[in-house]
Amino acid sequence: MGKVAVLGAGSWGTALAMVLHDNGHDVRLWTHIESHAKEMNETHTNNNYLPGVTIPAGLQAYHDLSDAVEQVSAIIFVLPTTAIRSVCKQVGAVLKHKVTMIHGTKGIEPVTFKRISEMMEEELPRELFEEIVVLSGPSHAEEVSIKQPTTVTAASRSKVAAKRAQDLFMNQHFRVYTGTDLIGVELGGSLKNIIALGAGISDGLGYGDNAKAALVTRGLTEIARLGTAMGADPLTFVGLTGVGDLIVTCTSVHSRNWKAGNLLAKGHTLDSVLDQMGMVVEGVRTAQAAYQLAEAKGIQMPITTGIYHILFESAEPRDVVDQLMTRMRRQETDEVHAMLKEHYQD
Amino acid sequence: MGKVAVLGAGSWGTALAMVLHDNGHDVRLWTHIESHAKEMNETHTNNNYLPGVTIPAGLQAYHDLSDAVEQVSAIIFVLPTTAIRSVCKQVGAVLKHKVTMIHGTKGIEPVTFKRISEMMEEELPRELFEEIVVLSGPSHAEEVSIKQPTTVTAASRSKVAAKRAQDLFMNQHFRVYTGTDLIGVELGGSLKNIIALGAGISDGLGYGDNAKAALVTRGLTEIARLGTAMGADPLTFVGLTGVGDLIVTCTSVHSRNWKAGNLLAKGHTLDSVLDQMGMVVEGVRTAQAAYQLAEAKGIQMPITTGIYHILFESAEPRDVVDQLMTRMRRQETDEVHAMLKEHYQD
Repeated sequence: MGKVAVLGAGSWGTALAMVLHDNGHDVRLWTHIESHAKEMNETHTNNNYLPGVTIPAGLQAYHDLSDAVEQVSAIIFVLPTTAIRSVCKQVGAVLKHKVTMIHGTKGIEPVTFKRISEMMEEELPRELFEEIVVLSGPSHAEEVSIKQPTTVTAASRSKVAAKRAQDLFMNQHFRVYTGTDLIGVELGGSLKNIIALGAGISDGLGYGDNAKAALVTRGLTEIARLGTAMGADPLTFVGLTGVGDLIVTCTSVHSRNWKAGNLLAKGHTLDSVLDQMGMVVEGVRTAQAAYQLAEAKGIQMPITTGIYHILFESAEPRDVVDQLMTRMRRQETDEVHAMLKEHYQD
Repeated sequence: MGKVAVLGAGSWGTALAMVLHDNGHDVRLWTHIESHAKEMNETHTNNNYLPGVTIPAGLQAYHDLSDAVEQVSAIIFVLPTTAIRSVCKQVGAVLKHKVTMIHGTKGIEPVTFKRISEMMEEELPRELFEEIVVLSGPSHAEEVSIKQPTTVTAASRSKVAAKRAQDLFMNQHFRVYTGTDLIGVELGGSLKNIIALGAGISDGLGYGDNAKAALVTRGLTEIARLGTAMGADPLTFVGLTGVGDLIVTCTSVHSRNWKAGNLLAKGHTLDSVLDQMGMVVEGVRTAQAAYQLAEAKGIQMPITTGIYHILFESAEPRDVVDQLMTRMRRQETDEVHAMLKEHYQD
């Protein structure tokens, strides 16, 4: 097995590096924080991101980026959205050969509304890769790191590239399915974090499972609506992306977006919530980007709009949720019908 | 407001009767057990089905069926699947006028594979009703009884009949949306209980949220597959029926199907599980009916088949779940695509 680099040693990057290590690859897990690399190499822990998990001794952490990517056949970007452009630039400056470029980051860039692969394409020299692959699906890092059964999708415009990512990651516990809807898988994975914030808010207000199910169901419609307008295949959202993502994100104790929503509902300010979390809460910035995008494109996204108002305009969580519950459309499937009809009649 | 009868005083029947009572109707809640009617009328409790909840004093329980249905404008059947035919016969013998017939029962009849409304149509004299309405959606009775926000669908071939059910039940906490896909809403509501058993089994085996999300996502495809073959609109399954149902059933502590699956995974026999539950676990009989139906129609339902094997052929839960995890299709959306394409090109 060859050398591969994972850039970003948060919980998801570390868990993915562990899957690759299990599969026999020589894995280089890069972090921009020197003490973080030192912790992983010396005590074999990653206490801030995967407490209680032992990093295998053969899995090497790197702080020097050019060392990390030397002679690798694949690079997996698992960084916060805000770090994608700068790390791509750094990789472009030190990488000398073509590799398989994969990412596992869930986000949309504010202002430009670019997906992660679009940002990567803009920053990485074209001769260093063929087609970018996104790896996404219902997968808590904590479970992946202890080999709990997990299924994800590897999507790329190139079937060959998606297959290459599948071959790298696939094992008995970590099932990888391939697809070609790069746009849908990237958007679905990102937008679901907004709905997870909403689920956390609903739970935090003391509403029950019935309310959360209604919210998440409407959230799926909203994700499919924006996704389809951006060029995604609407069917992507009834698979592991969309339905699968929402089930795992909105109902699990592990989700940091859910936790952030929960704290917001209990009266904490956004700043204090982000402070308490100590990790990037992608849903917050994604809500902002999606809200601006929906406004710019004239797309109805009532849940995203409500959450944006809570996050950035001090709206009362209870007022927003009550409003969402009462304004739901009466003929619930009409719009989805129209969307799919148009898609299939093209 | 007029008189309405709710037949069946289990948790869901009682919760629906409470919604109707809140809306100002004169509600007659019928049970075939005399002591059960007495308990509700005298101590205003329903301890076996809704422990801790107080039945409003004005909500009258009945043991005599002809008294219960006298002069009512609507009858809501919320009985176990096995009781539908016999109670319909009894209603036919005592009811003298046409009413709105609604049901909230989730099940399929074994051997005949009939839906609840089909059984009702066969047993009720035709002059007593126009079109049957099904009321279904992500709704735990326990939450409805304490006025937690809930959304459901009222579906009927007749828009007028669906609207009538909506008018009866709709209030600030209990939102009712109308639809015309009677088949889809009945089948979706019933089949989701099989997947809930599966989710309970997965959790009971100690698998995590990632595994459950994969199972439930595949379960949705399976429900849509059988539903569509039986004449349902595939789009119904991405709304409150389907996605909504699955989210609430598979992730909640209230679901009795989930509980039954959980016990099965821990090594209890089916008989002992049903004994411990003390309530009807519709998913068990529905799994049997759906398995037979899928076999007869040549429809692939791997999750239903696996659960049938656990329930009725002593298959090991762990073997079944492991098999399901590894046999999942690689190109996950291909089949759903084909299904929707066919639907929209008709």
